[in-house]
Amino acid sequence: MNRSNGSPSDWSITRSGATVAASDFLQLNPADAPRGGMSDWLARQIRRAVAEGLLPPGSRLPATRVLADELGVSRGVVTEAYRRLTEDGHVEGRGRAGTVVLAAPLVRPPEDGPVERERGGRGQAGRGPVGRRTPGHGAEERGTGKGGSGKGGSGERRVAARRAEEGRSTSEERALFGDPLDTGIFDALRAAPARVDLSPGLPDLAAFPRAAWLRAERAVLAGLVPADFGYGDPRGTPALRRAVARWLALNRGIAADPDEVLIVAGTAQALGLLALVLKDEGVTRVALEDPSSLGIRQHLRNSGLASPPVPVDERGVRVDALRATGARVALLTPAHQFPTGVVLDGVRRRELADWARDGGLIIEDDYDAEHRYDRPPVPALRSTLADHVAYAGSVSKLLAPALRVGWLLAPRRYRDALVDAKRFADLGNAALPQLVLAHLMESGELERHLRFLRRRHRGRRDAMIAALADRLPGAVVHGAAAGLHLTVTLEPGCDDVALAAAALEHGVKVQPLSWHAQRPGRPGLVIGYAASTPSDIREGVSVLGDLLR
Amino acid sequence: MNRSNGSPSDWSITRSGATVAASDFLQLNPADAPRGGMSDWLARQIRRAVAEGLLPPGSRLPATRVLADELGVSRGVVTEAYRRLTEDGHVEGRGRAGTVVLAAPLVRPPEDGPVERERGGRGQAGRGPVGRRTPGHGAEERGTGKGGSGKGGSGERRVAARRAEEGRSTSEERALFGDPLDTGIFDALRAAPARVDLSPGLPDLAAFPRAAWLRAERAVLAGLVPADFGYGDPRGTPALRRAVARWLALNRGIAADPDEVLIVAGTAQALGLLALVLKDEGVTRVALEDPSSLGIRQHLRNSGLASPPVPVDERGVRVDALRATGARVALLTPAHQFPTGVVLDGVRRRELADWARDGGLIIEDDYDAEHRYDRPPVPALRSTLADHVAYAGSVSKLLAPALRVGWLLAPRRYRDALVDAKRFADLGNAALPQLVLAHLMESGELERHLRFLRRRHRGRRDAMIAALADRLPGAVVHGAAAGLHLTVTLEPGCDDVALAAAALEHGVKVQPLSWHAQRPGRPGLVIGYAASTPSDIREGVSVLGDLLR
Repeated sequence: MNRSNGSPSDWSITRSGATVAASDFLQLNPADAPRGGMSDWLARQIRRAVAEGLLPPGSRLPATRVLADELGVSRGVVTEAYRRLTEDGHVEGRGRAGTVVLAAPLVRPPEDGPVERERGGRGQAGRGPVGRRTPGHGAEERGTGKGGSGKGGSGERRVAARRAEEGRSTSEERALFGDPLDTGIFDALRAAPARVDLSPGLPDLAAFPRAAWLRAERAVLAGLVPADFGYGDPRGTPALRRAVARWLALNRGIAADPDEVLIVAGTAQALGLLALVLKDEGVTRVALEDPSSLGIRQHLRNSGLASPPVPVDERGVRVDALRATGARVALLTPAHQFPTGVVLDGVRRRELADWARDGGLIIEDDYDAEHRYDRPPVPALRSTLADHVAYAGSVSKLLAPALRVGWLLAPRRYRDALVDAKRFADLGNAALPQLVLAHLMESGELERHLRFLRRRHRGRRDAMIAALADRLPGAVVHGAAAGLHLTVTLEPGCDDVALAAAALEHGVKVQPLSWHAQRPGRPGLVIGYAASTPSDIREGVSVLGDLLR
Repeated sequence: MNRSNGSPSDWSITRSGATVAASDFLQLNPADAPRGGMSDWLARQIRRAVAEGLLPPGSRLPATRVLADELGVSRGVVTEAYRRLTEDGHVEGRGRAGTVVLAAPLVRPPEDGPVERERGGRGQAGRGPVGRRTPGHGAEERGTGKGGSGKGGSGERRVAARRAEEGRSTSEERALFGDPLDTGIFDALRAAPARVDLSPGLPDLAAFPRAAWLRAERAVLAGLVPADFGYGDPRGTPALRRAVARWLALNRGIAADPDEVLIVAGTAQALGLLALVLKDEGVTRVALEDPSSLGIRQHLRNSGLASPPVPVDERGVRVDALRATGARVALLTPAHQFPTGVVLDGVRRRELADWARDGGLIIEDDYDAEHRYDRPPVPALRSTLADHVAYAGSVSKLLAPALRVGWLLAPRRYRDALVDAKRFADLGNAALPQLVLAHLMESGELERHLRFLRRRHRGRRDAMIAALADRLPGAVVHGAAAGLHLTVTLEPGCDDVALAAAALEHGVKVQPLSWHAQRPGRPGLVIGYAASTPSDIREGVSVLGDLLR
């Protein structure tokens, strides 16, 4: 992406978010739109412009009335297009401030040769990724972070000096990003000191509701009978299973009986138990979205399961490609694909449902579904496919990973085997934290906390988008409508592992996108924003920008 | 406990939390106190009054000055007594509102007999099974439980009536004791209602130090930095690993570096992780003492490991028989063999050390080593055989099984693989309870709690021995010098499974000894005493006696 080419001077776009003049807005010609598909066409054009950087984050779209007049269409057409863009996280309505571009859900650039690419496929109603190669930048591209090359600014000297004080060497950071299938890689990265930690997957940990937790624990302790301190039901305490069932009904559209809920020590354990049970029935492969979480890929590998990759495009996982793998189990992140942020759309949901009814099992990793900002909630697959989905959720992104509490709702035929597996794993989760959590859920404290987090996270996300627009103008931002992280893609040829290593050397922790990809793809970074303050976000992104320059 | 006896009308106690008049406060007579033990005596009297309901929750205690005047003791004596009561959760200081009764950790009224009573067994130094054959009862013994025969006493009629109300039938209880290798058997037994639960393996759960736990949690929460709520070291928090290393040095004679400590979710998980790692090296069999814990045998079976039985005699496991099995791994309970209570003696220790040095690995299940009454502490095998012992301990018997916290110290060659296994199991234990526990350990609270438990448990053990002598005169009692349970053996021909089923039908939960035996052996019962009050113990044993008659 190159913001200096094309003719952006035609468009009154400024980085600072000035209103885009509608008169020539994107040089749109409504005559290109398919009959009856005007809103869809308009949304697609704007999406593409966002992806290409023609509408950088912070740009304001024309008022609906103005654009409708320009295009000679009804205002409803524009309103509907904006609504769709809002839903998928490209833009956000800000009242009097208008409709503002946030970021671009991941769209693979054409040069990556995505399986699903359909170029020139006019009239395809937005199927396939939108991408454009901007010419003339090969010469400017270079790998980064090689020995911390490119140091120079005063900020970087400061960083380098601090690093020297800490006695850490570049090679140490480099080693941390070695073989991504090394099982200890996340531990090593976590243990590495960093001034600004932009690792993905963490909520605002400073917001942990300590006082509410302690109050709930006091209430719980006062109400316990001695037997509650003994060995318990390996499925979890009845109180938490009830509370989780209610929470999932309210927040995820899932109608489940508490008896269907198995309390586990986080999604990692849910996956481990499922792997045991599925292997017992002869399963050898679990298809994974590509890209998808490296941690989950490591986990499956450790369980002796292969993980055939299935491409993701802007509608979500490619179900035709999933069918082509022949795998009968797939682990998916439908609500907010990790790491791209794509939301599985209605067409793909229907295709997946068909696949499942043909004998497929979906492991639905609903890892951060509660965190959404600019779009309506997306119901879980489990809500309509109870017999075909093993649903895993946790409080890691709602409260704190350190609590190690999650839940697994599996199709009935797996339940007894899963309870056995849980019993032999650890005889069941610890009771006290379960009861405290149940108390927070039932009292409404958790819901309040979630609302509070959403506000905080949204502000941090906006700070990161602004910082990226300012300091990484060449990066394309994806997945901003929900979650706790953004993914940015960089120019082809950029060595994202070297970049992440150099960033760590400069005190900033991020993850390379290539870690999470099985097939070659666009380089990039996966950057968490939820756990960092806006000033840390700006500082971290600034370091990234310096390294990329 | 009987509130209608005594004369509470003498005391100015109200349920609404009015101040208790000190002038007659509990009719205390300092002359009853032992020399030099005034604070202890005072605390005990107040505890008892709380337990009896004489001081209901919400009551305020007299001001220290007032009570000290009344009793003619120094104010420090009263302050110290209140401090102890605060520590064990009976009362709470509320500033100007005074010292208020919170709740009653269980202490039975005086008619239950003094806590420190030591009957019989004097000077036996506790080695070997403590067995006592009470003479003259052979003729009265007979198989029991056939169709619940022997009902008759008014207590039993009451039980039978209650059972009928609950709609449970004899056959249901019988089914609970079906195939002991059914993996759900413990869950089913645990879930079965019983008026008196004499299951082995539980400490006094009513004594769980709720107030101290909550205080420690408050202190921990106040001191955490946000990153502590994130993903942590899968080995456990450094604070708990340090605290456990110190605890083991002080209590179990083990010199270990905190880095050697792996925090796990109880001994069940320790065993599961070890099984994974050992199977990876080709281990197919883990020798077990016979009898030994059925739960552990189930666990090994679930892991696909055979468990060749090794007989136990009064010196402990038979090492010659262990050698004869050809197994290179053995799971042992040296400090207090389960269920027999035998302590591994010096000769056998030396033989075991030779076996280990010849290539054997010992899994040392140190499940209740801290609970000893009439004997000196026995150092762990791990203390002298660090390279040959995988040592597993937990807080299940120190505080509560519901905490699901334990530790595993393995020989160096297994450590990396075990950390990997723990990471994939659940990414590590939850952080908060680890830190609270570390706080309790480092502050000395856990040590105090253990001393408190020892006194309580000793009293309950004595109550059980007395009740057994009275009501099961034909039974031989084993393993009384330590632990939380007794094993009684019965006359050959007695069907202990039927007896346990009949007992459950009559509202009393015990485990048949034959569950825990692989080879045919003497029938018997494994009976926990630590978690039950002396009066419940008497009631439960009385039911057993009626069934055996």
